[in-house]
Amino acid sequence: MQAPETATRPVMRPYLAETAGFASGKTTPRDFLERCLGDLAAWEPKIGAFVSLNLDGARAAAAASSARWRAGKPLSPIDGMPVGIKDIIETIDMPTEQGSPLFAGWRTARDGAAVAALREAGAVVVGKTVTTEFAATVARGTRNPWDLSRTPGGSSSGSAAAVAAGVLPAALGTQVIGSTVRPASYCGCYGFKPTVGAINRGGSYDCLSQSSTGTIAASLGEAWQVAYEIATRAGGDPGFAGLAGPPAGPPARKPRKIAFLETAGWAMASPGAKAAMDDALRRLGAAGVEIRTREDDEQVEAVESAIEEARKRSMAINAWESRWPLNTYRARDATKLSGPALARLAQAEAMTLDDYRALLRERAQTRALYAELADEVGITLSLSAPAAAPVGIESTGEPACTVHTSYLGIPALSLPLLRDDGLPLGLQIAGFAERDADAFAAAAWLEGALA
Amino acid sequence: MQAPETATRPVMRPYLAETAGFASGKTTPRDFLERCLGDLAAWEPKIGAFVSLNLDGARAAAAASSARWRAGKPLSPIDGMPVGIKDIIETIDMPTEQGSPLFAGWRTARDGAAVAALREAGAVVVGKTVTTEFAATVARGTRNPWDLSRTPGGSSSGSAAAVAAGVLPAALGTQVIGSTVRPASYCGCYGFKPTVGAINRGGSYDCLSQSSTGTIAASLGEAWQVAYEIATRAGGDPGFAGLAGPPAGPPARKPRKIAFLETAGWAMASPGAKAAMDDALRRLGAAGVEIRTREDDEQVEAVESAIEEARKRSMAINAWESRWPLNTYRARDATKLSGPALARLAQAEAMTLDDYRALLRERAQTRALYAELADEVGITLSLSAPAAAPVGIESTGEPACTVHTSYLGIPALSLPLLRDDGLPLGLQIAGFAERDADAFAAAAWLEGALA
Repeated sequence: MQAPETATRPVMRPYLAETAGFASGKTTPRDFLERCLGDLAAWEPKIGAFVSLNLDGARAAAAASSARWRAGKPLSPIDGMPVGIKDIIETIDMPTEQGSPLFAGWRTARDGAAVAALREAGAVVVGKTVTTEFAATVARGTRNPWDLSRTPGGSSSGSAAAVAAGVLPAALGTQVIGSTVRPASYCGCYGFKPTVGAINRGGSYDCLSQSSTGTIAASLGEAWQVAYEIATRAGGDPGFAGLAGPPAGPPARKPRKIAFLETAGWAMASPGAKAAMDDALRRLGAAGVEIRTREDDEQVEAVESAIEEARKRSMAINAWESRWPLNTYRARDATKLSGPALARLAQAEAMTLDDYRALLRERAQTRALYAELADEVGITLSLSAPAAAPVGIESTGEPACTVHTSYLGIPALSLPLLRDDGLPLGLQIAGFAERDADAFAAAAWLEGALA
Repeated sequence: MQAPETATRPVMRPYLAETAGFASGKTTPRDFLERCLGDLAAWEPKIGAFVSLNLDGARAAAAASSARWRAGKPLSPIDGMPVGIKDIIETIDMPTEQGSPLFAGWRTARDGAAVAALREAGAVVVGKTVTTEFAATVARGTRNPWDLSRTPGGSSSGSAAAVAAGVLPAALGTQVIGSTVRPASYCGCYGFKPTVGAINRGGSYDCLSQSSTGTIAASLGEAWQVAYEIATRAGGDPGFAGLAGPPAGPPARKPRKIAFLETAGWAMASPGAKAAMDDALRRLGAAGVEIRTREDDEQVEAVESAIEEARKRSMAINAWESRWPLNTYRARDATKLSGPALARLAQAEAMTLDDYRALLRERAQTRALYAELADEVGITLSLSAPAAAPVGIESTGEPACTVHTSYLGIPALSLPLLRDDGLPLGLQIAGFAERDADAFAAAAWLEGALA
């Protein structure tokens, strides 16, 4: 097969705009899939985004979708959309290896909740995308399509790399520290980490209290639509309200006032990243948006102070919540756990339940403090990462810019609107809990204003 | 092997009282286990409490425990205690069949969080106890050791039957409607359903928002101790505070005032059950406890009214939350799902996410209303079931007396202090969320007062 031109420079491949032609049969989801598979053939050997593929299953699903569109009966706007599933989430037709040699080839004989919902909506599951070990620290060899010497970020490494390379219009990610927004930033994709609990995590093996299943996509509309179609069919986590908002994506709405949050990431940001952010803020100001910062707003300063320890506290919370299952994995075969996984378990075993309760109380207080900002500003803005993707594929990069949104349980989006060092860099838009749609509405406006 | 005398009448076998003799080696956990296995041999063919057994593993674990006690270094007060694991929770050494033919022989290669914690505490895992299909409706043939023609209750059928028959001092149960308290009542055991989220449900396949992992035990002390040792090592569900209280079991404390809750079960209660409850209330009154009822207390009446629909609403909540994974099981092989499971899925598919949100709002309001009672009374009291275990093993009996505690997310205990029709009947003590220890303190006093 001849490598298409896109093999030299990654170009994303949105899907929703294509569906207009499906009814006539001029083009079909089946054709769309083949174009994706062309890019798969060209890119996959270089970027290593997938752990497993089910191309026969995908082709059959795309053919069935083509017939539905032709009959005027698509199951949803994403009927026929090729999607990737982060390999921390169960699939009935492929193993769920969780980025761990302990689970090589391991099958669960069912789909996770989000996967079942995607299939119900007609989406075409192409494969399982590479995750770091247990969606935590240790990278599994995926490369950034913008520069093969660089990390795509993690832990949703394969999802971001595949979407960036045009292999998929959208893929599932998960985030507990920065695992959706950061790879979206590094790979120049759209990333959406919903309010904690907004997307059902049933059958996802990252069972942490800050963790959210989200989307990495080729457009803002796709990031919403995929999440929305899942929530409609699978809801949120049991006991949670689930993602709320309009079926077709929240229309653009200009925020009157926004807060810029430095986060712990600003102090380590590259000159290029700082300049890009400053420029974006200047242009938003020129467009009539009032910008509040820690310099001129006590409430913003209070939030900045409160989230300074977000990373350390998140790591401690995650450690305690990982005591199980890491303890049973260690009992099975400690040699198949990485050093960081064993260190996390050791941290947990040095903690008590009382330590954990204190961490939960602190987190609840910080969430309440942040929630008060909702009366003042429509969204908060920050870098998605302190810089473009760093060179090297051993580390998945720096999460200092993203951890606060996981700690706070709030919706966060990364838009590929900035550049650093000639590479993509995300602008991060964070909203308020259970108001994901408002964050999208602001993001849609910002995208237009900053494009 | 000669059947021991207990084969004709079930006698529970407490463990904690035995441990005093372990240091001297006069008796050992290994000896204790053999006595349990004697009752296993006598009873199991009649009651069918187990799906799987690992007797070699149990004997090895009991021997290791014996050595620890002899060396004066037990891992916990329950070191060496033989326990059973409801077969809805993962075990590394035995399949996790979930009461479903879809999962016959299915292995997950890890322990659930509670199981890992029990092993860390030195407990001896003897086997997997029978659960109804997916811990829901359809019974799997276990019989009540008090009368083999009767149900042991469900869904924790095997745990209750095994504890009642003296095969185990304690076993894990789960409850989302009445699955711990009801079988404890029918089998004359102690049952403890903690505050929702108080015991880590990692690796348990009943992922519902009202569901709690709990204990069924041969004494009140054991019901506490097993839960406590799990919580200390595995915490609660991620994001929850986890079971709190003293290491050695809350000391008895006389409640000044209690509320009697009829619940939906009183109207259908047998004459014997009503007489037993009335007698208990009379004796508590004589002992100086003030009893409030719906007749003489507006707040109690408000709670009674608010929980009237608890069962219907719980079933709807459970249905939505079971949409996944039942949808993926149906896709795999619908013929291996029961009629009730398919009906639950159909109910879910007729619901919308908005319907579910409305149910969550109602539940939150009812929980807030009940919580106000905490200023007035120490505990609420009711029957654990409307009558003794009914004849027949197709149905697991009537949950009308228990569903409110699951709906409210509050701790509930069943004490085997009543009789109906010459058979055991539980007295149900319900407390207030995250105050499980207070409910135990009151239960300890009540047990003394009513013995």
